[in-house]
Amino acid sequence: MDSKLDFIFKRRSVRKYTNEPVSATQLNSLLEAAMSAPSAVAKDPWRFIIVRDQKNLEAISSFLPNGSFLSSAACAIIICGDINKAHANSLSYMIQDCSAAIENILLAATALNLGACWLGVHPREDRIENITNFCKLPSHIIPIGVISLGHPVKQPEPRSRYNPKLVIQEKWSTENN
Amino acid sequence: MDSKLDFIFKRRSVRKYTNEPVSATQLNSLLEAAMSAPSAVAKDPWRFIIVRDQKNLEAISSFLPNGSFLSSAACAIIICGDINKAHANSLSYMIQDCSAAIENILLAATALNLGACWLGVHPREDRIENITNFCKLPSHIIPIGVISLGHPVKQPEPRSRYNPKLVIQEKWSTENN
Repeated sequence: MDSKLDFIFKRRSVRKYTNEPVSATQLNSLLEAAMSAPSAVAKDPWRFIIVRDQKNLEAISSFLPNGSFLSSAACAIIICGDINKAHANSLSYMIQDCSAAIENILLAATALNLGACWLGVHPREDRIENITNFCKLPSHIIPIGVISLGHPVKQPEPRSRYNPKLVIQEKWSTENN
Repeated sequence: MDSKLDFIFKRRSVRKYTNEPVSATQLNSLLEAAMSAPSAVAKDPWRFIIVRDQKNLEAISSFLPNGSFLSSAACAIIICGDINKAHANSLSYMIQDCSAAIENILLAATALNLGACWLGVHPREDRIENITNFCKLPSHIIPIGVISLGHPVKQPEPRSRYNPKLVIQEKWSTENN
């Protein structure tokens, strides 16, 4: 693993946080990183809901199976897509754009010595509905994922899950099956 | 813009390349970076087709509107999803996972002083069909995007497209409309 890419290998899901808050400056840097992601035809069809209020964190945590740790996070970012703004009003492009922004936030958090974890929302209808209702989202704003954020109790070791079997040369062949 | 996040701000779409090849070591690093992305329930439902053959690059270029520059790239990576492996066999999760892997490749390319550009495939049916036929993909392997790669003629300036209007505090309010 090339150490020039450590900023990628160091990103791991972090679910345990200290009580230290995430500063407004740090949050702003994460949002700058998010909005530096590419988007189809540069439509930037994303919206970012910042959740700091403890009661709101607990509510959103309750909507997400395996997301109980969110209630002890310093804050969360709910990444939503605006289907009216997405290239060709395409759900696929919108999901791709939001996912690139999410990955940027995760990598930026790691580089700022924060811990983060991506919690899935879309396409689970109950999660979409609960978050939509709770955050009073209009119908064209679709929640895609939630990122929990805080200062990590422990930063896990860098790693890659590189698997040579998933790499194909030029065209598919029977050995790729 | 915090310079600790320059690895993100420096990533820009690069469409003009020198004749210098991308080395096998560099390609391997890009794939390690790709497979360090998170995926839903760690299913890693991605496949990466490496295209180096000039005739194949030209063919794939012909399938992609605005992708003519791909024929002068050193190589390309076609990122595909395996719907049979995706969490809950969900197209949405599969697209999210592949998009995070794509973003990692783009950032890794930048860190290795390469130039890269993300070319959209999914959900365009003609592009999916042409790439599927040309690369002889089985029906459960769905092309999501293509990344063109090479040594940049010129590296563009770092930037963010940060827009404060896209940030919401806690819950949606009428001023967010």
